[in-house]
Amino acid sequence: MKTDKIKIGILGATGMVGQRFISFLQNHPYFEIKMLAASKHSAGYKYKDVCNWALETPMPLDVKDQIIINTEIDEIIKKDVKIVFSALPGNLAGDIENKCAEDGIIVCSNASAHRMDKDVPLVIGEVNPEHLQLIQTQKKNKNRKGAIITNPNCSVIQLALSLKPLDDAYGVEKIIVSTMQALSGAGRGGVAAFDILDNVIPYIDGEEEKIEEESKKILGVFDKDKIINHKILVSASANRINVLDGHTECVFCQLKKQPKNIDEVKNIFKNYKSMPQELNLPSAPKNPIIVIDDGFRPQPRYDRMKENGMAISIGRIRQDNCLGGIKYVCVGHNAIRGAVGASVLNAELFVKKYFDF
Amino acid sequence: MKTDKIKIGILGATGMVGQRFISFLQNHPYFEIKMLAASKHSAGYKYKDVCNWALETPMPLDVKDQIIINTEIDEIIKKDVKIVFSALPGNLAGDIENKCAEDGIIVCSNASAHRMDKDVPLVIGEVNPEHLQLIQTQKKNKNRKGAIITNPNCSVIQLALSLKPLDDAYGVEKIIVSTMQALSGAGRGGVAAFDILDNVIPYIDGEEEKIEEESKKILGVFDKDKIINHKILVSASANRINVLDGHTECVFCQLKKQPKNIDEVKNIFKNYKSMPQELNLPSAPKNPIIVIDDGFRPQPRYDRMKENGMAISIGRIRQDNCLGGIKYVCVGHNAIRGAVGASVLNAELFVKKYFDF
Amino acid sequence: MKTDKIKIGILGATGMVGQRFISFLQNHPYFEIKMLAASKHSAGYKYKDVCNWALETPMPLDVKDQIIINTEIDEIIKKDVKIVFSALPGNLAGDIENKCAEDGIIVCSNASAHRMDKDVPLVIGEVNPEHLQLIQTQKKNKNRKGAIITNPNCSVIQLALSLKPLDDAYGVEKIIVSTMQALSGAGRGGVAAFDILDNVIPYIDGEEEKIEEESKKILGVFDKDKIINHKILVSASANRINVLDGHTECVFCQLKKQPKNIDEVKNIFKNYKSMPQELNLPSAPKNPIIVIDDGFRPQPRYDRMKENGMAISIGRIRQDNCLGGIKYVCVGHNAIRGAVGASVLNAELFVKKYFDF
Amino acid sequence: MKTDKIKIGILGATGMVGQRFISFLQNHPYFEIKMLAASKHSAGYKYKDVCNWALETPMPLDVKDQIIINTEIDEIIKKDVKIVFSALPGNLAGDIENKCAEDGIIVCSNASAHRMDKDVPLVIGEVNPEHLQLIQTQKKNKNRKGAIITNPNCSVIQLALSLKPLDDAYGVEKIIVSTMQALSGAGRGGVAAFDILDNVIPYIDGEEEKIEEESKKILGVFDKDKIINHKILVSASANRINVLDGHTECVFCQLKKQPKNIDEVKNIFKNYKSMPQELNLPSAPKNPIIVIDDGFRPQPRYDRMKENGMAISIGRIRQDNCLGGIKYVCVGHNAIRGAVGASVLNAELFVKKYFDF
Repeated sequence: MKTDKIKIGILGATGMVGQRFISFLQNHPYFEIKMLAASKHSAGYKYKDVCNWALETPMPLDVKDQIIINTEIDEIIKKDVKIVFSALPGNLAGDIENKCAEDGIIVCSNASAHRMDKDVPLVIGEVNPEHLQLIQTQKKNKNRKGAIITNPNCSVIQLALSLKPLDDAYGVEKIIVSTMQALSGAGRGGVAAFDILDNVIPYIDGEEEKIEEESKKILGVFDKDKIINHKILVSASANRINVLDGHTECVFCQLKKQPKNIDEVKNIFKNYKSMPQELNLPSAPKNPIIVIDDGFRPQPRYDRMKENGMAISIGRIRQDNCLGGIKYVCVGHNAIRGAVGASVLNAELFVKKYFDF
Repeated sequence: MKTDKIKIGILGATGMVGQRFISFLQNHPYFEIKMLAASKHSAGYKYKDVCNWALETPMPLDVKDQIIINTEIDEIIKKDVKIVFSALPGNLAGDIENKCAEDGIIVCSNASAHRMDKDVPLVIGEVNPEHLQLIQTQKKNKNRKGAIITNPNCSVIQLALSLKPLDDAYGVEKIIVSTMQALSGAGRGGVAAFDILDNVIPYIDGEEEKIEEESKKILGVFDKDKIINHKILVSASANRINVLDGHTECVFCQLKKQPKNIDEVKNIFKNYKSMPQELNLPSAPKNPIIVIDDGFRPQPRYDRMKENGMAISIGRIRQDNCLGGIKYVCVGHNAIRGAVGASVLNAELFVKKYFDF
Repeated sequence: MKTDKIKIGILGATGMVGQRFISFLQNHPYFEIKMLAASKHSAGYKYKDVCNWALETPMPLDVKDQIIINTEIDEIIKKDVKIVFSALPGNLAGDIENKCAEDGIIVCSNASAHRMDKDVPLVIGEVNPEHLQLIQTQKKNKNRKGAIITNPNCSVIQLALSLKPLDDAYGVEKIIVSTMQALSGAGRGGVAAFDILDNVIPYIDGEEEKIEEESKKILGVFDKDKIINHKILVSASANRINVLDGHTECVFCQLKKQPKNIDEVKNIFKNYKSMPQELNLPSAPKNPIIVIDDGFRPQPRYDRMKENGMAISIGRIRQDNCLGGIKYVCVGHNAIRGAVGASVLNAELFVKKYFDF
Repeated sequence: MKTDKIKIGILGATGMVGQRFISFLQNHPYFEIKMLAASKHSAGYKYKDVCNWALETPMPLDVKDQIIINTEIDEIIKKDVKIVFSALPGNLAGDIENKCAEDGIIVCSNASAHRMDKDVPLVIGEVNPEHLQLIQTQKKNKNRKGAIITNPNCSVIQLALSLKPLDDAYGVEKIIVSTMQALSGAGRGGVAAFDILDNVIPYIDGEEEKIEEESKKILGVFDKDKIINHKILVSASANRINVLDGHTECVFCQLKKQPKNIDEVKNIFKNYKSMPQELNLPSAPKNPIIVIDDGFRPQPRYDRMKENGMAISIGRIRQDNCLGGIKYVCVGHNAIRGAVGASVLNAELFVKKYFDF
């Protein structure tokens, strides 16, 4: 069957994030999976024969019989894909993503390796789409034909998406956030059942630093050829709890200007739309932020799949007299909105808006 | 068997908190359970025949055959107890506790009804034992021979206990706290399994208000005949998670004076002792605060039973540049340190220090 | 909007089973919800205003504003519905279901009240559709214009559905079954989180008796005007575990004739189809039984939603030398295949096959 | 401090089972830990510095500073221990256990490697203590000075212990058993939280075979110099569920002779005592079998720790008309009664009864 879709590939295709990419990209109107790369142990086998599929939805038909290639640049080049989505672990991603970019490929990466590189955009479609212009700087600096585009850490994405409209309206100065993060964020085997049953693990390696640093870059301003970081101060406490999918965040927010009332804040959240909505991108939620009035919500089990997992849900918005601002609870699907969905949205944005860069 | 122990009673003896009182008071050197009061449905029956015992440790022998009385003042008086522990729900506690106090009984109450009454001490043994002197005011004001002594809400107890040494050393100005609270805090049937499995409930009725208000009173100063509230500002976000026992709290703390370093803070926590330790009270933990250096701790399953459930565990102490102070994670057993243990410690303190008031 | 759909009603519309009926019937090609009956506390209110919706999928638009009626026959009659689905608790169902049937309504009941009545069909669409003919006997016996049709208990449905093809092929003599049943089978508040976390409850009231008795009737033969029970002996041990939806059953099966091999059994399961498939009924799964070759499956979380929750999954089929037959594991969605889906399938079967009775 | 205790060692000291051995042997009246062996990665380090302690009770003081040795026979010999407890995985245990036995050491092994060896006793203290005489055969056959003694698989121990008194009284012919097994049976990282939350895994590698085969040997008769297997037929279905500790088993039992009534069976269970009780061994429970009358019990969370985890709890005893016999539910602590406790009890038995072999 011939198609005009853009050929794409997936790095780290057999892992949990790789599987999520495959599932999320099923029947995508722009993209067609033409390359599945994984470790050399899997290379040469059909996807269905080596992938230990962990999603509740079935493995899409069109990848089942694709032969996995080794994650090496020579093999990747042969596949002639325009875009690769990187689901590699941070420590492996750095080198191969660079090589792909040098070879003319657009790398949409969920890995942390290049997120804080000065000339690599760290983008949430609805928050800082204009940061994609940093690709120009990257190409020039590094003398490469392709480019790397990254999306933030899962817990940062829902936080920054909730902060953006507040920052626009009131100016956000300080953020205190405690997270209750889902198991899937740690990968399939990342948390042992014995360790988390009837328990909380109040630490996630590197997470608090990512929340504190990435927020500043994402909310920063693109100025000619670089990002000027936002001055926001963020302090985080990250916890792992016994929930499958969906991070819950308790956010306390110091604002420069005080809202008139809570209804005003609700409306600002509800009405927030941005470039992905304007461009009507395939993966864009109609409303990226859903405000829930039920005082016992948002809850991860009930709210993580709102708008196919691409909308975040905010509830319990109330005044905060301690910091001078507001506090609220935010739930988002860490593996969709917080990972593969964000990455695919970045690719869609790039294709629609910046492809002729 | 004759004994010189003080005769005590339990109001609400068949519920979860009542059961905890009975279990905690087993073989107590000062107290002997001589009265079990519950609703009229249970009155007249042996304890073992109507109590749906929910603890993993067995029902103590000495209560099994005691006949339950109705929670009415006439019945209570007949039992001639000196102290009653109240495990009643807030809405039932107010009236009967008053009546007991009027009748000369010392009521050590875990209920919320009288906590914020101006002449009722709200005491954590290691934090504000001197507030017990408020009993004099209460007796005079209300012209009663007995008195009501309350302990704070479970989530406040571990918070205030962790704040006290910080306040002494540095002065605490603002607190942001997110809680992850255990199921047992809601009573046996308080949370349906269907609602909490693979989920978080980001709201607990009245909890945040209690945290914010009770803290000020507990950390306040006893001045002649009244409490002058502490000026601390507290903002809380309270969550229910799928853990049996043990609340986990992420605390962010703005300090007047900055600690020299984290080790100094650790030492201040570790070395904290107070009147219950000095008086060597039977239920007093040797160290009310345990500092854990393992970066993945404290965890409720592993740390809730430290010192028979009477010590709180603090870990992950780190600088907080956002508020200007420190942040840490605190775990305590909500049903022991945060409820019956606190109440019994208050009774012990009263007996040893203030009985001849 | 005019429609030729059959008007139906739901008894017990606000409970968990009632909600499941509403959700399952959304956009149904034959049926249109025109009556929602609940207790008098809810009567008179809009559905959306009193129903504490517990499903992860949103409340269907078309019921939101319907006014709930009281579950009394006078009110029900006014609504002029042809079929009612009964989601009432067993103790309430008996009387009102009789009254509906007397009044000419077809009652498709998930309640246990009339299941074992001699002239009430107890039907699983794919197992004993011909038992629906018992309606004639019922009408004659009871001199009623309507009739009651029941579906079995949730744990029986998946068991009997798995036994039917085995019985046809080999003759089933004895069954030993241990169940691991989901929380939703007990209703929303039926199991307290405190009781089931890190635990198993090895008893479900009345469940084992239902499994043992209902199986005989379902697998029995319709003979002129009555059911002759199957001679199968069934012994069950029923357990509640901490799973949201989906019962898992370990089945040990003594067969009259021995299968040639396990592949033969697999094919008999795989190829099983029955009247709902032949009639192409809207709620009929294409394959009521799915055989899973993965040796770690079926698992409730992964397999409960197969074919919209209407197919059961069978795996780990192996010889059983102890009983002389086979053993296997079976997973089905207790609330869909095991309750509302079964009930709706019965209604569809009735409409397509027997309406002109 | 001098002591007359027997010097013992632990193979696999850093794993979960090894930790359990250390915890269980704390303050043991006969034994003193003088050797901790683990993999070469840990060898040379202090126990406290390399062991990732996973128990809720603290690491015993007397092992903290012991230097771990490599699990090699030369190193082991130097330590001059009389008994070693083996907590090694099955695949590593075989060879080193043989070498220890050849070297004169008594190996009490929880590993599966030698369980089914014809001249190796497979012993549950209360079921077949006389099988220890097989050591003579082993010594002669293999010309070794030491010997290997094994205890059965965790799920077999509680099953066989429950069957023994039934077999004595009525003769047991067939057993059908479905297990719901705890996480700790799989080792600390053996089950991923992502795989088991809201789920059941209806398969445990090799478990059903062990249950079916080991039972015959344990219940067999020691005849001069060998074991004659019991003719019992056992069929098992093994499941992993989301419980920390404590296996729950639903047992269906065909008996040669029928009990007069259920009370008779209860008494047979209750009154069962055996050699460990007669010898008053330190780890022997006073009653190895506890009968629970509460119809909702036994439950793993409430009953696993009965008699320090060494008693099994049986409840829901009822007639089984299908097989002709009885059915019941049995709970035991898989890691104590089902592993280290059983192994230590074997060692105690050997010391008290057979040391001068």
